[in-house]
Amino acid sequence: MTFSQKNIISIKDFSKKDIKYILRVAERMEPIARSKETSNLLYGKILGMLFYEPSTRTKLSFETGMKRLGGNVIGFTEAAGSSMTKGENLADTARMVGEYADSIVIRHEMEGAARYVSDLVDVPVINAGDGAGQHPTQTLLDLYTIKRIFGKIKNLNIALIGDLKYGRTVHSLAYALALFNVKMSFVSPKELKMPDEIVHDLNKIDVVARETENIHDVLDKVDVLYVTRIQKERFPDPEEYQKIKGAYLINSELLKGTDLIVMHPLPRVDEIAYDVDSTPNSKYFEQAFYGVPVRMALLKSII
Amino acid sequence: MTFSQKNIISIKDFSKKDIKYILRVAERMEPIARSKETSNLLYGKILGMLFYEPSTRTKLSFETGMKRLGGNVIGFTEAAGSSMTKGENLADTARMVGEYADSIVIRHEMEGAARYVSDLVDVPVINAGDGAGQHPTQTLLDLYTIKRIFGKIKNLNIALIGDLKYGRTVHSLAYALALFNVKMSFVSPKELKMPDEIVHDLNKIDVVARETENIHDVLDKVDVLYVTRIQKERFPDPEEYQKIKGAYLINSELLKGTDLIVMHPLPRVDEIAYDVDSTPNSKYFEQAFYGVPVRMALLKSII
Amino acid sequence: MTFSQKNIISIKDFSKKDIKYILRVAERMEPIARSKETSNLLYGKILGMLFYEPSTRTKLSFETGMKRLGGNVIGFTEAAGSSMTKGENLADTARMVGEYADSIVIRHEMEGAARYVSDLVDVPVINAGDGAGQHPTQTLLDLYTIKRIFGKIKNLNIALIGDLKYGRTVHSLAYALALFNVKMSFVSPKELKMPDEIVHDLNKIDVVARETENIHDVLDKVDVLYVTRIQKERFPDPEEYQKIKGAYLINSELLKGTDLIVMHPLPRVDEIAYDVDSTPNSKYFEQAFYGVPVRMALLKSII
Repeated sequence: MTFSQKNIISIKDFSKKDIKYILRVAERMEPIARSKETSNLLYGKILGMLFYEPSTRTKLSFETGMKRLGGNVIGFTEAAGSSMTKGENLADTARMVGEYADSIVIRHEMEGAARYVSDLVDVPVINAGDGAGQHPTQTLLDLYTIKRIFGKIKNLNIALIGDLKYGRTVHSLAYALALFNVKMSFVSPKELKMPDEIVHDLNKIDVVARETENIHDVLDKVDVLYVTRIQKERFPDPEEYQKIKGAYLINSELLKGTDLIVMHPLPRVDEIAYDVDSTPNSKYFEQAFYGVPVRMALLKSII
Repeated sequence: MTFSQKNIISIKDFSKKDIKYILRVAERMEPIARSKETSNLLYGKILGMLFYEPSTRTKLSFETGMKRLGGNVIGFTEAAGSSMTKGENLADTARMVGEYADSIVIRHEMEGAARYVSDLVDVPVINAGDGAGQHPTQTLLDLYTIKRIFGKIKNLNIALIGDLKYGRTVHSLAYALALFNVKMSFVSPKELKMPDEIVHDLNKIDVVARETENIHDVLDKVDVLYVTRIQKERFPDPEEYQKIKGAYLINSELLKGTDLIVMHPLPRVDEIAYDVDSTPNSKYFEQAFYGVPVRMALLKSII
Repeated sequence: MTFSQKNIISIKDFSKKDIKYILRVAERMEPIARSKETSNLLYGKILGMLFYEPSTRTKLSFETGMKRLGGNVIGFTEAAGSSMTKGENLADTARMVGEYADSIVIRHEMEGAARYVSDLVDVPVINAGDGAGQHPTQTLLDLYTIKRIFGKIKNLNIALIGDLKYGRTVHSLAYALALFNVKMSFVSPKELKMPDEIVHDLNKIDVVARETENIHDVLDKVDVLYVTRIQKERFPDPEEYQKIKGAYLINSELLKGTDLIVMHPLPRVDEIAYDVDSTPNSKYFEQAFYGVPVRMALLKSII
């Protein structure tokens, strides 16, 4: 697709070529994101931010991206938002912001909210997470992180670990990685396995992921360990949860001797021990940074 | 008046010439508001925003206006504001912001708050709504909307409909329209009639508005239907409210065959049905947009 | 010290030469802070603001400073912050913002928070108040105010009055003033005397402050009356508090015939009567303004 004025709703709307294009543009944005170069590419432009749910990282990296490019933002976040938009529905609020801004980025708890809004307004809409639905800019920054660290995505060995059943992030990432000929492993407790539907979709394009409950099955083989949180609420039995939590905890002891990288969409709770932070394996803060050039690349391309 | 460093407190401070001047400047601002041109007219300038009450549209359009002109904003909105200004009164807060900013825009629940603040600070103050008092920038954008759509205001036939008793917006608008030789109608339930004092003021300058309870009396005559909300709280008897609500509901059925335009200061609750949105009569989102060039014109003129 | 990339944690890290340097730079920043000149010195730069406690003046003056210099800010304030950072600790939040911004300014209720954060991130950190700890930018703007009004700090007669026991502001200010050969007086109820440790530290460098409970002992001698609030919570007996409050109230009657200046870090509650505002003695709003050029000087120097 050509990106000018396009909506960014789902990673499934992106061809492999589209993804590669955005990652290439992101690379050109990096010196600006690192404050080594200045730019006025988006001078006078306004991004409207509708954050009906809190999301510090996503919000701040979009804001940083706009501002580093000379643009600016308007809008609201949940805490203020709840009272600010009292008595007005999503449609009217979005149409209003669509009158003011050059693009809208929306996070909403309702699946499909971003696509719904994109049908109402004349400016391009970016989905920053819609409940159990999509979060395409997270997937793009995950891919960019891998690309920047290994110089490629192709042929890498990548394990997704944690809650693979409910985790929106890993679903989108699995689809996107499938385009790049990677070797995938899915590591999760049996209660939180990757949904059959996704496994089946991947099989249809000849991608067969190894599935296991045991992290040690993949540890000496993978280049990337992509960790997600396992939520207590998924387990009726607290003891069962404690056992699972222990078995999936990533700490420096576990990583000793490996040269894999650890990624995480953040925020973490306690699935990655703090002693990992100072190891060379830890890449999740670098990954958070890469949200800026990737979102800059999208903003530059659609506005 | 010359606008440099002037306070914008009440539409009554504006002569017809003043209004026409602002509308003309707003027209020049429109390409910038539409992001077709860029400007650095207010580069380095700061607008201080004191929103003690929520007001998404007013706040975001002021913000958009400043940022499109290369300026920026500081300040707070109610949700954050309540805790941020804990223990400090309006006077001290306003004086502080007056030390930092080039102009202050204030919304406050207390009538007279904007004028009170304008006496305390050295920078020009814009009233963005003071309780039952004034909201002059709303009136100016209403006039601008009419001017842009019809090419003129003079000689148009304009009906104000809904709560004409408590509605600050329609009071200010009636005074301003009276300067432009329009034919006015006031359509409201008898409990919510335009106050005698205003009717009397208009009569003194030979403006006689038609008053009626029945929307059908005006429907085939008017160019503009300016709708405002009727609040449930005004009616002790809920059944009475339901009857009134039904009689004043604007829907596409009612508008069929007319070419009048429907305006509304927004947010709406249920006084305009959603099926009106896609009719050519609907102009309330366009009206919301015009808040940007009109507020740009004011900011440019006073700062 | 050379300031580039330095953390600003405590006024004790500043030599007299450092302070004089910042005050000199602040003077050059003043025309920009007053909006008489524009600057793009920090164009494209981002200040990350982590305000875990509300602090309107400090926050807005940092924001104003960045924006007047062409830069911008990201971050959050307490009200929004509490929900935005739900489930994420200070360390992870700070590291994230450190990835996005060129510098971080933090206010936190925990003493030592700013230094803790400065050890975690790669960008310079500014302490905007850490509980009972330090608030160095307040001290610098206090010094700048005195310098601007008297043309010098040396040899002035300066009284600190109010709660000298718990007041972080007066502790830092006393240390800084000691470098400038001023004559200091400490005026407080005996329950709220300057801590022995600080008096002792000052004595070691041959600074002997006069200590008294009676404001009238200093009134005809001082050039500066630096007032701080006496909090009700410090007194178990409400009657005792009322008596103290009355004895330390600054009003226009008290100041009659003097030409001292009254300073206050603000917000005030009722320790300075409103009738002082219109006297020539009152300098606390001007002092609030000076927060802008002083913070600009720091931002310019470290980023």
